[in-house]
Amino acid sequence: MQELADIGVFGLAVMGANLARNAARKGFGVAVFNRNGARTDELISEHGSEGRFTPSKDIAAFVASIKRPRPIIIMVKAGQPVDDVIEELIPYLEEGDIIIDGGNSLFTDTNRRFHYLTGKKLRFIGMGVSGGEEGALEGPSMMPGGTLEAYQRIEPIVTKMAAQVDGEPCCVYIGTEGSGHYVKMVHNGIEYADMQLIAEAYDLFKTVYGLSAPEIADIFADWKTGDLDSYLIEITAAVLRKTDSTGKPLVDSIVDEAEQKGTGRWTAQSALDLGVPLTSITEAVFARALSGRRAHRIEAEKLLPHPEFPKRKPTAADIEAVKDALYASKIVAYAQGFEQMTAAAKEFGWELKLGEVSTIWRGGCIIRAAFLNRIREAYESGVAAPNLILQDYFRDAIVKAEPSWRKVVSLAIEAGVPVPAFTSSLAYYDGLRRARGPANLLQGLRDYFGAHTYARLDKPGKFHTRWSQDGSEVQTS
Amino acid sequence: MQELADIGVFGLAVMGANLARNAARKGFGVAVFNRNGARTDELISEHGSEGRFTPSKDIAAFVASIKRPRPIIIMVKAGQPVDDVIEELIPYLEEGDIIIDGGNSLFTDTNRRFHYLTGKKLRFIGMGVSGGEEGALEGPSMMPGGTLEAYQRIEPIVTKMAAQVDGEPCCVYIGTEGSGHYVKMVHNGIEYADMQLIAEAYDLFKTVYGLSAPEIADIFADWKTGDLDSYLIEITAAVLRKTDSTGKPLVDSIVDEAEQKGTGRWTAQSALDLGVPLTSITEAVFARALSGRRAHRIEAEKLLPHPEFPKRKPTAADIEAVKDALYASKIVAYAQGFEQMTAAAKEFGWELKLGEVSTIWRGGCIIRAAFLNRIREAYESGVAAPNLILQDYFRDAIVKAEPSWRKVVSLAIEAGVPVPAFTSSLAYYDGLRRARGPANLLQGLRDYFGAHTYARLDKPGKFHTRWSQDGSEVQTS
Repeated sequence: MQELADIGVFGLAVMGANLARNAARKGFGVAVFNRNGARTDELISEHGSEGRFTPSKDIAAFVASIKRPRPIIIMVKAGQPVDDVIEELIPYLEEGDIIIDGGNSLFTDTNRRFHYLTGKKLRFIGMGVSGGEEGALEGPSMMPGGTLEAYQRIEPIVTKMAAQVDGEPCCVYIGTEGSGHYVKMVHNGIEYADMQLIAEAYDLFKTVYGLSAPEIADIFADWKTGDLDSYLIEITAAVLRKTDSTGKPLVDSIVDEAEQKGTGRWTAQSALDLGVPLTSITEAVFARALSGRRAHRIEAEKLLPHPEFPKRKPTAADIEAVKDALYASKIVAYAQGFEQMTAAAKEFGWELKLGEVSTIWRGGCIIRAAFLNRIREAYESGVAAPNLILQDYFRDAIVKAEPSWRKVVSLAIEAGVPVPAFTSSLAYYDGLRRARGPANLLQGLRDYFGAHTYARLDKPGKFHTRWSQDGSEVQTS
Repeated sequence: MQELADIGVFGLAVMGANLARNAARKGFGVAVFNRNGARTDELISEHGSEGRFTPSKDIAAFVASIKRPRPIIIMVKAGQPVDDVIEELIPYLEEGDIIIDGGNSLFTDTNRRFHYLTGKKLRFIGMGVSGGEEGALEGPSMMPGGTLEAYQRIEPIVTKMAAQVDGEPCCVYIGTEGSGHYVKMVHNGIEYADMQLIAEAYDLFKTVYGLSAPEIADIFADWKTGDLDSYLIEITAAVLRKTDSTGKPLVDSIVDEAEQKGTGRWTAQSALDLGVPLTSITEAVFARALSGRRAHRIEAEKLLPHPEFPKRKPTAADIEAVKDALYASKIVAYAQGFEQMTAAAKEFGWELKLGEVSTIWRGGCIIRAAFLNRIREAYESGVAAPNLILQDYFRDAIVKAEPSWRKVVSLAIEAGVPVPAFTSSLAYYDGLRRARGPANLLQGLRDYFGAHTYARLDKPGKFHTRWSQDGSEVQTS
């Protein structure tokens, strides 16, 4: 009789299959199940030699083949399919068994499932997994949320499956309920902003400076060696350099309509709920939505003139200025995302350790970057700035980049190149940077038409002006 | 025995009391009820002579005092209180009676209540009411949603209560379910953008040009006579001109932290769900959130330097340029809001007549403006542009304003004055205006790390490049 498996994987599409292979390659026994058994056969015939797999064709046998308390990773489409799989598994599970949802579930769904399964004396871990197909196989960044005890049961397995950076696994216990999926959601939101910033820099080089895709690839390849060193910058160079079978740059033949799956949108919606000004990520989400209106854009180009702007080759200083704009905007996007996680932790009662979050994002995941070491240091320094921008390292970096940032945004505006993430990041920075903004007027207007009252700088309390009556001011609290 | 009332009003805080007085002044018999009966007594003793009121101290008597089928407006705080009142009323209602929720309820709650009450053979109208306290009394803009038959029962009453513009009531049947509250929500979202744009213009005059509040009041008073003619521009002049008991401008003593109640946030969240790029309203919501972080801002001002920028008095052309920027940005904000309503109508199966919506927003409500006549004409022209910006009138206006708009935004960026709604509107415009954007790179990146595939300009289908394998391209659909 075969030894019981250390872990089960339910759902063997690419991500599930690669996670199963990852665990098997690391020496764990892996039980595998897929609704369509042909996929299971395929996995075993193609990769069965990579480790100890236990394939099953029915759920009872699958569950029975795993060591108790059983950890079972489910990798199915987010939404109803996750609930369906949970219901299918429940009849075969025993007290203390652990269902681990490794998909991109909405954190409120994870909260609900967590409490539902706890009520059934089962355990549930919502685990964000980032790194795409390759990460799932070679070592992803993993963000597990649930009870600490449940996590401790799977820790020896998942910390080996995860990417390793400087000897540390890119997997750490995030917190209770849906906190793991929440952190993964914000990770994806930051990924939207990161990508949009890259697209804006690309657009400037192409549209303002008239550079070709391979020329722009060289710039990104160069940036890979400095402060911007990251996976996304690296693959941007690779994508821009790629030619297709026609011998021309592939990117020039790709339709400019970006799709999205939901996590960026959820991040923005949660920020709105929490009252966190998350402008960069949200503009990135909206930029994708506008890209999707290609028919409108084609129509609009015919009706709306383009500002005249002669193209010219960039100087080294021009290129450096775009880099500064990208870097400063990126600092804003991350600062906003981390502020959102801080606000979420407070709102939902989660003890998120954001230094650890930045640590596990250093490897395996899509936004992995040298930059995250600086964020980790900021959190570990113990200086509790309310905003990453105010931490010494980032403050110095953004202040240094600021003059170029302004110049690049002005240039884009003059040339008619939309850079919504660059500009909204700068507007946020300028809003944060001023002790006195113009919202006093908003409060005056709100009091005028809605008697919403206002506070005064010179005395405590709330006040209302009797605008339409005698114009006198009354204190209301 | 007193004649039965034409309509009931449940909840006599300021908005409810003013709506009741409005109906009574127009000659309708009005049954009134409030949980705390003292408020009912106060209404009758202060305003009982304005018309035929029937006060009741218990719900049974209140309901019995209204003509069948009974229309009952409830004016209580949005959320659970609305459900509570509905449950309290149900035992006394009879088939066909109509509950009308006149508060700012979330449209999904209204959808739910609509179907719940329909199942009980009762009728439910979710009615957006805009205009603040004064509008409620003198004539608001009303946006009723529910079944047409239920609306027809209350039509003779509400069309008399509403504001009248050019002989037409600012009240029209919007559509089924929560469509009335949806349209009111977008109205409020547009109000957020309108106010933010005004605040940005004020900030520029104050910070870049060094003008005093009364000097800026003169500018807004002048704008009241042109394309920007609107209630908000008018009251901006009034608020800026107001001095308090110290003899100094009131606005200079108001704390610059703007509050919000939810409808702006809901508008942005719904746009994200619908995939509509709603940048202006969303930036306005986030600007309020950032204004609320006053302690962070005070801290940040100490740590982050301000760009050096000498103040100078504005020329007439400078002032005109700010006006152009405000006007162009306003066109974008409205175009986005109307696109959102179009998308919502499609998504939820509502037959929204947007020409009629712009008609009823011309009077009574907070965003009432001459401008809305132009939107009405655009919809009534029958030319179905996918975006208001592409309709002749608005296209000509925005193209004319464009050069100044760019200059003003660049000036603000140079001077370090945050104008997030001006800039995001311009970025949207520049994004809409280009047949070819940079999202091809996003799709290339998404295919690289997630095998999400891309479309090509030169042939139909979806494609994936085997980036990490042999680099060849495969067609996936």
